[in-house]
Amino acid sequence: MKNIAIAGLGLLGGSLGLALAEKKVNRIGWARREETRTAALAVNAVDEVHPELEVVLKKADIVILALPIPVILELLPLCAKCCRPGTIVTDIGSIKLEIVSAADRIFTNPDGPYFIGSHPMAGTEKSGINAAFPQLYKNADVFITYAKNAPDKAMAELENFWQSISCHTAIIDAAKHDRLVAETSHALHVVASALSLSILDHADESEKLARFRGCATGFKDTSRIASSSPQMWREIVEHNTPAVLAALEEFEKSLEQFKELIRQGDFDGFEENFSKGKLLRDSWLEYKGMK
Amino acid sequence: MKNIAIAGLGLLGGSLGLALAEKKVNRIGWARREETRTAALAVNAVDEVHPELEVVLKKADIVILALPIPVILELLPLCAKCCRPGTIVTDIGSIKLEIVSAADRIFTNPDGPYFIGSHPMAGTEKSGINAAFPQLYKNADVFITYAKNAPDKAMAELENFWQSISCHTAIIDAAKHDRLVAETSHALHVVASALSLSILDHADESEKLARFRGCATGFKDTSRIASSSPQMWREIVEHNTPAVLAALEEFEKSLEQFKELIRQGDFDGFEENFSKGKLLRDSWLEYKGMK
Repeated sequence: MKNIAIAGLGLLGGSLGLALAEKKVNRIGWARREETRTAALAVNAVDEVHPELEVVLKKADIVILALPIPVILELLPLCAKCCRPGTIVTDIGSIKLEIVSAADRIFTNPDGPYFIGSHPMAGTEKSGINAAFPQLYKNADVFITYAKNAPDKAMAELENFWQSISCHTAIIDAAKHDRLVAETSHALHVVASALSLSILDHADESEKLARFRGCATGFKDTSRIASSSPQMWREIVEHNTPAVLAALEEFEKSLEQFKELIRQGDFDGFEENFSKGKLLRDSWLEYKGMK
Repeated sequence: MKNIAIAGLGLLGGSLGLALAEKKVNRIGWARREETRTAALAVNAVDEVHPELEVVLKKADIVILALPIPVILELLPLCAKCCRPGTIVTDIGSIKLEIVSAADRIFTNPDGPYFIGSHPMAGTEKSGINAAFPQLYKNADVFITYAKNAPDKAMAELENFWQSISCHTAIIDAAKHDRLVAETSHALHVVASALSLSILDHADESEKLARFRGCATGFKDTSRIASSSPQMWREIVEHNTPAVLAALEEFEKSLEQFKELIRQGDFDGFEENFSKGKLLRDSWLEYKGMK
């Protein structure tokens, strides 16, 4: 029975443990706070917990660092030191270049432990073990980054691991990954937050109240991810600055095109453009099997 | 038993009929297409249908025009001509100034029929009678506009009507309404469509495929309303151009502030701004009883 170490038992680590509950693996959890470890055991997100990360790392066949980006970077040397040869260390960080580059400098033994970066496209606007649920990873895409010291066998094993909880894996270059998710995720969080601020924030209290009343389900969904963790999104954007700015500019070009059509009174053009956006989104839903 | 005429049996008209199913009213439906009338009867969205709008209007105590904006404007004279004194005619259009101004010129008899504009903040990205469901109006806010020839009694009756299906009513000036919903709804649809286009549209097929793969639930929700009817949103934006442009500019200012913080590397400022957006959205959820 393989030992799967989950370091970090928040929404992502906790949900991963829950997704693995029916598998024939031993789930060993680690979290800095005792309260989190106790809660993770209580909801059956892990089979055992340890307060000492070293102990967990020594026992693990696969380690998943389900932690904030700065903590992942901080713990890489300890993982390289404590894990046994052959162990695969991976993470769930939303950026890959900085993490994998650091790991390439730290994981140098050709016999392992091996580092391979993962980024499961899964999450909600909530945080913490109490927000965890077993379906979070259901059918999620997981991007896996080329690692220098990891042999094909380790890559295949990690792909199998994610596929065992119904994820779809795709191997991708780290820099390309970071540009891609800046487009498909990171910039979206900035847009959603800017919408929440521009719509709900108003100096005049009666105008503010009117806006609170005037927002409905369209606003609810469009701004959902604005309720995400500010610290987490700060860290992600901080580690992917040029790509996020480029993605925002691409979006602004698209918005400017709409504004120009509205200004010109070209509503046939507006309808055509809107139809194109609808067609693209509808075909995306179909591609993801959501329609 | 009051006769409630529902003219237009799409998502909004059909759902209104379904919401009224358990009430002691007679629901008379009208739609241009026979297929729609038959479908509305089949799903019990109405008690009876007629192909002739005149017949429906003559019988009605309350008329709801659940139709596109240009059709609402087109049918106002017929409503004024065919409806009996005392009948209340309302609509569900997303803009109010142009509709109520037109109605003020057309509904001039002090004994009625009376026109009062309504705008229920309810909808989904789908269209048509088959997308209708009885909970669409549940707890929805309905903006009601001052009308020239409508006495207080008629205003109160219309408020009661919406409240009977659990809506919260608020009386608002038409011009103020149009500016408000440009902020809370109309501009959002343009933003969502621009996101769909900027993220999913790419000349390079392999890059396009990567983006399709890289989008997840964050994109799904943020862009949901981009799958709305292009014709309907063209008509709404066309009838509320200056307010939509102003709302988009307000949003862009908010986005620019984020971009400037990112460019400057001021991530404490970024986190603070994001926190403010989260706090506002979370308090909005609470205000709406959604949390």
